[in-house]
Amino acid sequence: ISFGKCVVRATVSIEKETPEAERPETFLRGVDEAHSSSSVRARFEKMIREAQDSVCSALEAADGGAQFKEDVWSRPGGGGGISRVLQDGAVWEKAGVNVSVVYGVMPPDAYRAAKGAPTDQKPGPVPFFAAGISSVLHPKNPFAPTLHFNYRYFETDAPKDAPGAPRQWWFGGGTDLTPAYIFEEDVKHFHSVQKRACDKFEPTFYPRFKKCRGNDINSKSGGRSSNLTITGNNGGKDKNDVIKVCVVTTITVSGKDGINSNGGSSNGSAASDNNCSGSGRETNELSHRGERRGLGGIFFDDLNDYDQEMLLSFATECANSVIPAYLPIIEKRKDLPFTEHQKAWQQLRRGRYVEFNLVYDRGTTFGLKTGGRIESILVSLPLTARWEYDHKPEEGSEEWKLLDACINPKEWI
Amino acid sequence: ISFGKCVVRATVSIEKETPEAERPETFLRGVDEAHSSSSVRARFEKMIREAQDSVCSALEAADGGAQFKEDVWSRPGGGGGISRVLQDGAVWEKAGVNVSVVYGVMPPDAYRAAKGAPTDQKPGPVPFFAAGISSVLHPKNPFAPTLHFNYRYFETDAPKDAPGAPRQWWFGGGTDLTPAYIFEEDVKHFHSVQKRACDKFEPTFYPRFKKCRGNDINSKSGGRSSNLTITGNNGGKDKNDVIKVCVVTTITVSGKDGINSNGGSSNGSAASDNNCSGSGRETNELSHRGERRGLGGIFFDDLNDYDQEMLLSFATECANSVIPAYLPIIEKRKDLPFTEHQKAWQQLRRGRYVEFNLVYDRGTTFGLKTGGRIESILVSLPLTARWEYDHKPEEGSEEWKLLDACINPKEWI
Repeated sequence: ISFGKCVVRATVSIEKETPEAERPETFLRGVDEAHSSSSVRARFEKMIREAQDSVCSALEAADGGAQFKEDVWSRPGGGGGISRVLQDGAVWEKAGVNVSVVYGVMPPDAYRAAKGAPTDQKPGPVPFFAAGISSVLHPKNPFAPTLHFNYRYFETDAPKDAPGAPRQWWFGGGTDLTPAYIFEEDVKHFHSVQKRACDKFEPTFYPRFKKCRGNDINSKSGGRSSNLTITGNNGGKDKNDVIKVCVVTTITVSGKDGINSNGGSSNGSAASDNNCSGSGRETNELSHRGERRGLGGIFFDDLNDYDQEMLLSFATECANSVIPAYLPIIEKRKDLPFTEHQKAWQQLRRGRYVEFNLVYDRGTTFGLKTGGRIESILVSLPLTARWEYDHKPEEGSEEWKLLDACINPKEWI
Repeated sequence: ISFGKCVVRATVSIEKETPEAERPETFLRGVDEAHSSSSVRARFEKMIREAQDSVCSALEAADGGAQFKEDVWSRPGGGGGISRVLQDGAVWEKAGVNVSVVYGVMPPDAYRAAKGAPTDQKPGPVPFFAAGISSVLHPKNPFAPTLHFNYRYFETDAPKDAPGAPRQWWFGGGTDLTPAYIFEEDVKHFHSVQKRACDKFEPTFYPRFKKCRGNDINSKSGGRSSNLTITGNNGGKDKNDVIKVCVVTTITVSGKDGINSNGGSSNGSAASDNNCSGSGRETNELSHRGERRGLGGIFFDDLNDYDQEMLLSFATECANSVIPAYLPIIEKRKDLPFTEHQKAWQQLRRGRYVEFNLVYDRGTTFGLKTGGRIESILVSLPLTARWEYDHKPEEGSEEWKLLDACINPKEWI
């Protein structure tokens, strides 16, 4: 039943990446590099590369079985990335930790919406810079949870037709936990570390950034996301509507090399209008199943309403909190004995992870369609997954409790 | 890097389905039923339900290990379906065979585009009827191929604001083969049966309907699909552009209950503009990898340029050709010994199947987001799948040969 094909055109496409034999000192363009090593761009890149090194070292030491394989790549017009994957280890089935730097061009509408500017202006495309770290870690033991995190920084240049316009910048990111079985102490520990990182900077951060629960997202979620509705403010008034959607997403794509593994989520869904519509795109909700993927964490986007230095420190603190939030849980669970039944349940939850990433993560889906680095994008997929028709865990079972917590999110701390 | 959320609204949403204890005589609405049991609607429903019975009986007999589980459901406004799934059998890991009947409303633009009418008219929404059978069969043995088929029939009613307008009708569908290893005699046998079914009716059918190979899709693929570009003819001139895209896809969705498991495919991709852009949505191309999913088959859509009786017979012949095209291959391959390495390769190809279904199949993706029957939609996913980072088969190996045939499609007969 196909009446139409939906041709989605990208006016901003991504250059093909080139493999590199060695890690460069920096992925910044010459002009940026020359600019200053003390720029926020340069310092953010340094931070995510150090975070990549320290996270990978800690994971390798904890795994003991396998080592990270590294791929370095660059783009002719500037930017590049380092993808690292540990596969079939003693502890992790698949662990990917990527960093990337992207130079791109943002469609004017997205930029305008981000600033909340009036919609009757028509500025030209806005060049931007983005850098980020992104990671998904899938352990083997069904009692050891999957972890996802990503932290990213953005800057725009002035539009070409408005050279005097001010630059914009913002931070985004988050860390979240996806277990197959609930150990309450683990979930509490995880959220406590997130809260501690937030509280060091600003007491409102944790309540604001903890993931959407139920209908309270609009008041609690961070940033300016709710200004960014494409079909809202300015949607439908422009003959490029369809293209607009795609272009915005194309930019999201570029980020997928390592900047945002979590782009689109449940938006675009009638079901998601009921909750989390504010910044539901990162609530990890599988709206077709009425479930969230996991048990939450923190997430923020478009964050620029504090001092830039303070937010750089905050993002650094968040990235440095990943290992202390996660590894103690892994150490406790990695060697627990498990049954075939429990392994099959983990595999079914892995199937949900795949559904989430391929169906809802616009970064992934459009990344795949517009030329991002495939293997970096898909490193978020588990090594193995399973789908059973109409599977329903027995009421009251441990499997049912996890599903219930995904359907009816709760406060963990 | 998420500047905007992409709110996709469906003006046509799907009613929630209700489980039924028994198969009804027909899923047609009272008014249609009364109309005549000799109507094409009624005869097509009868045909697909008989095909479902005969395919399931043949598969159960060949499997010998497991039986189909059946779910019957209906929608309050009319229509419904029968989902049948055989899981963890002796031969098949997962085999789904669904039929459904859908009553829906088509957005006027889609209808107009389908007829190639001028775009300056603004008719109202067009009620339609659709019925179809859809199936994906995943065997356990890595040498036994996956099969997909679906056949469907459409009718529109006159738009409400143009009661005298003529009804439209068309047929669509296809059958295609996705092995993990190539046995040339199997692929030849499969295509020969397709050709024989086509040749019984019209010598131009097989060359016209065999799947896209390389760049020649525009001249060879069937139907009027290339008229249906939403962003082409009338794209961008209407303030409902974004909505339009969604609505069209919503209709595709309805079909996903059993009518079209193969809706969107590689459209919407910059990469796919290079080949198969004509009706690429059913070419099974994973454009992000530059691969097709499998080794082709036949596919047609919007087929109405022959006598309606003749096309009903043709669709019936195609549905009845599924078992003779497929089972002889299964019988030959189901008990071949295989290594762990070969099983892992099959699992990687299953991963590709999942990528195709969740990323490119708009029927699936929007079906999930707009309220189709989840378990019917996702029955196309394999029981198990696997993703390895940057996996590359050894050049010249059997795995490499399959990949090569997916990247460089060839003529099999």
